[in-house]
Amino acid sequence: MILRHSFMKLICDMASKSHSNDEEVETKEMDIRSLSSSGRHVHNTQYLHKVGVPPKQNLFREFTATVKETFFADDPLRHFKDQSRSRKLILGIQAVFPILEWGRSYSWRKFIGDLIAGLTIASLCIPQDIAYAKLANLDPQYGLYSSFVPPLIYALMGSSRDIAIGPVAVVSLLLGTMLSNEIDPIKNAAEYRRLAFTATFFAGITQATLGFLRLGFLIDFLSHAAIVGFMAGAAVTIALQQLKGLLGINKFTKKTDIISVMHSVWGNAHHGWNWQTIVIGSSFLSFLLFSKYIGKKNKKFFWVPAIAPLISVVLSTFFVYITHAEKKGVQIVKNIEKGINPTSVNKIYFHGEYLLKGLKIGVVAGMIALTEAVAIGRTFASMKDYQLDGNREMVALGAMNVVGSMTSCYVATGSFSRSAVNYMAGCQTAVSNIIMSCVVFLTLEFITPLFKYTPNAILAAIIISAVVGLFDVPAAILIWKIDKFDFVACLGAFLGVVFSSVEKGLLIAVSISFAKILLQVTRPRTAILGKLPRTTVYRNILQYPEAAKVPGVLIVRVDSAIYFSNSNYVKERILRWLRDEEEQVKAACQPTIQFLIVEMSPVTDIDTSGIHAFQELYRSLQKKNVQLILANPGPVVIDKLHASNFANLIGNDKIFLTVADAVSSCSPELVEEV
Amino acid sequence: MILRHSFMKLICDMASKSHSNDEEVETKEMDIRSLSSSGRHVHNTQYLHKVGVPPKQNLFREFTATVKETFFADDPLRHFKDQSRSRKLILGIQAVFPILEWGRSYSWRKFIGDLIAGLTIASLCIPQDIAYAKLANLDPQYGLYSSFVPPLIYALMGSSRDIAIGPVAVVSLLLGTMLSNEIDPIKNAAEYRRLAFTATFFAGITQATLGFLRLGFLIDFLSHAAIVGFMAGAAVTIALQQLKGLLGINKFTKKTDIISVMHSVWGNAHHGWNWQTIVIGSSFLSFLLFSKYIGKKNKKFFWVPAIAPLISVVLSTFFVYITHAEKKGVQIVKNIEKGINPTSVNKIYFHGEYLLKGLKIGVVAGMIALTEAVAIGRTFASMKDYQLDGNREMVALGAMNVVGSMTSCYVATGSFSRSAVNYMAGCQTAVSNIIMSCVVFLTLEFITPLFKYTPNAILAAIIISAVVGLFDVPAAILIWKIDKFDFVACLGAFLGVVFSSVEKGLLIAVSISFAKILLQVTRPRTAILGKLPRTTVYRNILQYPEAAKVPGVLIVRVDSAIYFSNSNYVKERILRWLRDEEEQVKAACQPTIQFLIVEMSPVTDIDTSGIHAFQELYRSLQKKNVQLILANPGPVVIDKLHASNFANLIGNDKIFLTVADAVSSCSPELVEEV
Repeated sequence: MILRHSFMKLICDMASKSHSNDEEVETKEMDIRSLSSSGRHVHNTQYLHKVGVPPKQNLFREFTATVKETFFADDPLRHFKDQSRSRKLILGIQAVFPILEWGRSYSWRKFIGDLIAGLTIASLCIPQDIAYAKLANLDPQYGLYSSFVPPLIYALMGSSRDIAIGPVAVVSLLLGTMLSNEIDPIKNAAEYRRLAFTATFFAGITQATLGFLRLGFLIDFLSHAAIVGFMAGAAVTIALQQLKGLLGINKFTKKTDIISVMHSVWGNAHHGWNWQTIVIGSSFLSFLLFSKYIGKKNKKFFWVPAIAPLISVVLSTFFVYITHAEKKGVQIVKNIEKGINPTSVNKIYFHGEYLLKGLKIGVVAGMIALTEAVAIGRTFASMKDYQLDGNREMVALGAMNVVGSMTSCYVATGSFSRSAVNYMAGCQTAVSNIIMSCVVFLTLEFITPLFKYTPNAILAAIIISAVVGLFDVPAAILIWKIDKFDFVACLGAFLGVVFSSVEKGLLIAVSISFAKILLQVTRPRTAILGKLPRTTVYRNILQYPEAAKVPGVLIVRVDSAIYFSNSNYVKERILRWLRDEEEQVKAACQPTIQFLIVEMSPVTDIDTSGIHAFQELYRSLQKKNVQLILANPGPVVIDKLHASNFANLIGNDKIFLTVADAVSSCSPELVEEV
Repeated sequence: MILRHSFMKLICDMASKSHSNDEEVETKEMDIRSLSSSGRHVHNTQYLHKVGVPPKQNLFREFTATVKETFFADDPLRHFKDQSRSRKLILGIQAVFPILEWGRSYSWRKFIGDLIAGLTIASLCIPQDIAYAKLANLDPQYGLYSSFVPPLIYALMGSSRDIAIGPVAVVSLLLGTMLSNEIDPIKNAAEYRRLAFTATFFAGITQATLGFLRLGFLIDFLSHAAIVGFMAGAAVTIALQQLKGLLGINKFTKKTDIISVMHSVWGNAHHGWNWQTIVIGSSFLSFLLFSKYIGKKNKKFFWVPAIAPLISVVLSTFFVYITHAEKKGVQIVKNIEKGINPTSVNKIYFHGEYLLKGLKIGVVAGMIALTEAVAIGRTFASMKDYQLDGNREMVALGAMNVVGSMTSCYVATGSFSRSAVNYMAGCQTAVSNIIMSCVVFLTLEFITPLFKYTPNAILAAIIISAVVGLFDVPAAILIWKIDKFDFVACLGAFLGVVFSSVEKGLLIAVSISFAKILLQVTRPRTAILGKLPRTTVYRNILQYPEAAKVPGVLIVRVDSAIYFSNSNYVKERILRWLRDEEEQVKAACQPTIQFLIVEMSPVTDIDTSGIHAFQELYRSLQKKNVQLILANPGPVVIDKLHASNFANLIGNDKIFLTVADAVSSCSPELVEEV
């Protein structure tokens, strides 16, 4: 590629001398064209409308426009325009703390909605928190801590009205797996906790930084399909992990892949299973799943699956307490500390070898947590039709986790299941999170000792019934229907998580997502166009079988911006279309191809490599005595065609507004014959 | 994103109940449409042509078609179609050894051309080879070895007719830098050489593998602009390195960045420079540059710069020999071994720690060598209009380097400067490489001892005059003109190489190239369309200021496939266009926007995330009482709109063949008024 430019100049003279017969051809072409223009009586638009060249922008404005589209696409500062300085300050404070904005119009009616929703999600979150903390290999109270401080911070800074904040299953599992790769959670519990807070701190920093630098779009690089697969895989992995609690197994593998886990389960089948645990666990699991089924069957009973976990916990705890089942091998929660979050500022590793490890784990966990929270936020915002600034959301989530890491919380984010319950219970604002937080506060202060006799099997059952929803079969079926490649990404992520580990699955998901992007930019589609009968519309002949090719003219549409990554392919592909067409034409004894029209409507941009490719295409066509004609280049493209002098090379009169104009310039008689 | 699907279903009922006024709106819309169809007398095409749904392909065929477009885009097996088995075998052998194909039609006339070209490039390559070997920290004969065996292998297997094979400056520098990071080339010369052969071996394996697996398109990911910058940076670095030879400095830094080198040069200014060396070096450098100027000025004298290096070597060697300048501090080549390539099979590291290092260096060097060779091959193939299969080329280049690594050669590839000379000297086939190879053979066997007295300063001068051409200012200017972002990539790679190191520069070049791709897929362009007066053509109003918006209708064109990486942006951007337009319309007291037409012509594909984004867009528009209408979705898109049931959701009668049809369905009176 390098030096091609100089080569071209260097050799252009020689080439033009050695092929002096080109000129003759061009004269002939000109004759045809002048003939055609005299014989024209249908399409005279191209004399009215030449392809527009947009007004030249100055460099600075062009640059700021690009920066704006990239980082400020949602125009977050539009409210600040044309405001006084003091008003701007108020708006600025409101932007950081949206509660100041919506708080002013808060009403009693809204509070009723928020109160009901808050109580409902609190009843759901308390048993879940205790269970999820176990997934992260932390003591149960840390789950409750994470449902106390973070929701309060979010209520101040967040702008989603429906999200329910707290620990979630997938992030807990991810954190648990990654942290225990570094430190043993049982032998070095204190250090493990410190690393957990460090990771939480950096997860928050990552989230806030992404939001502040307006790099939120980075999370869009994880494709929907990959997430569906990843989540389903995580659900299976989490459910499998719960077999330990559900079957009352003492010795259990630390690996999370399905083979190790099943091996561990069957290896313990003879003397490792505890039938009392199995009875309690399976009966309450059936109850939970049944309540879920009722909630799904009739939307009015959405509260049934929402309070079922709490009921299960209360009933089973009471049952164990009176029967002393814990002495018969039924494992219970045992100690759960009373009182609200202690500080943990001094526990975060700000130096030493664990700083870097915490940072790494924090970045990964923070990104996954972000993906989940932003997806929830967007879904509900579009459902209730309010604007949500993704980047501002990220700053709020980040701040919440940074504060959380200093108050003994681990990574919190928006929970899918609880947010849906929150929405259905009629929440109006983030006040429902405050209500939930208050209930958790009361629980921590007064009720935690009562959880001592809660059997682990119940927590396992609660987790299983919670993650069932992550296994989204209809979404997978829809993906299969819409896009097979997406399905491969989905399946790859799923199998990666299930058969290897959460991190591997995530890596597979990201890799496949990127591979798809790269494939997309390397191999753009091209199509041969034909004329729809009785119109001047040209369309893909594969999509419209009635579309007729114009004899002697080949019309190719390139369906992508032409960049270095595909310029060579585009050139080769156009030449291949031409070769195939020439063979067909020869076999059918039709007039040979004299004109190649490239429909450029979808070509939104072109770079230097693209221009080179077109120069080469032009030269190849010259050798074949085929005229190159361009139709409808966009503003950026026409600008660059002029800047690079390519427009002059092929002739400005070879660039047309529409394909119809271009075709009629070639041979109007033929067009009318069709 | 996960679970959105279930959410939607779950909440759809509720939403539809709470917004029952939607139905009324739709009825009103219907009235307008039925009115419009009765009042229509211009556009009745949509009754003739519905948007075509392409015939359903079976999964296997779809898959093979994708694989074919990705890996076999150039249809390399087309010659094999409909041939007998024995003919296929012959074609297969010819595909591996193209010499069997073109050799049969070889003629005396072609041989004359090849002979002259071969002798010319030989005279150029011999001094260059000796000089480049020094760049790679190898003894001079290894440069000559690499111009003996590889061109022979290439002549048998390669299909480019104009490329001149041998060591090149940039690859030599890259190899020299990377190898000497691992092993000191002076203290451990033998081990250094072994690692060089190992790297060459793996460079060959990399090249052949890429070609064999038809992954050649991977080299397209290095953008033209990045290469221009990288090459210019390498040229500056190489030229600076030559100050050592040119000024006769003994102690010289091993770093390649400009600051270390200039420090080293000035630090030696007082007693490290040798004036005799400077006189010889600068006078011959002037001679070489002047000959280059002559060759550039008049294409007839292309042979002047081609033989100038050999003349310089001969004259300077003779001069040193008779004046005994080597005793006055003028450094000379000293020993250069006689005889052809010894075997080096047993020197390649096939195990041990250097295996991996050699592999790593080999992959990088192999890719860069490939980029250069393929660019040359493509340029000349398009100039002389013959087909070149990039992947087959890579196999040839790979085989050549694998054989080379076993015969004491280091990485050889196509040289820009020598290939241009080859072309201009009138080469016809790869026989010119064989001629060159024969001359190098004779040189190795008989003449090498004569190079003993060649001053190093001459080699430095030859290198400088050779790399001047890599500093391609016009190309950089063109890049600046065409694409500012490309220019940043170019400058970044240049500065990275000059101020840091070759590898860093390369890394920067690759990173910027990828960043550009990612930016492209994340932030596609969108445009507002207006109607060109007296036509039914709708175009970007920024490009065509005369294009008029249709009152009450907003027409947005999305200029890219809609994938997970941009689906959310596209949705938000469309809503922002709508919001802006509504504000404008309000201010101007014009009719409110009732219809949003999305022109989908450039949307070549859509994935699950894209469909979700459109569903959300549709819901948001419903809330605003704006109708969503689609114009001209392509075959893949319409297929997926149906598969996902989105076409039914918005109504099949809301999808039109052209924007004009869509507009006339909204309000034909308005269209005719304009």
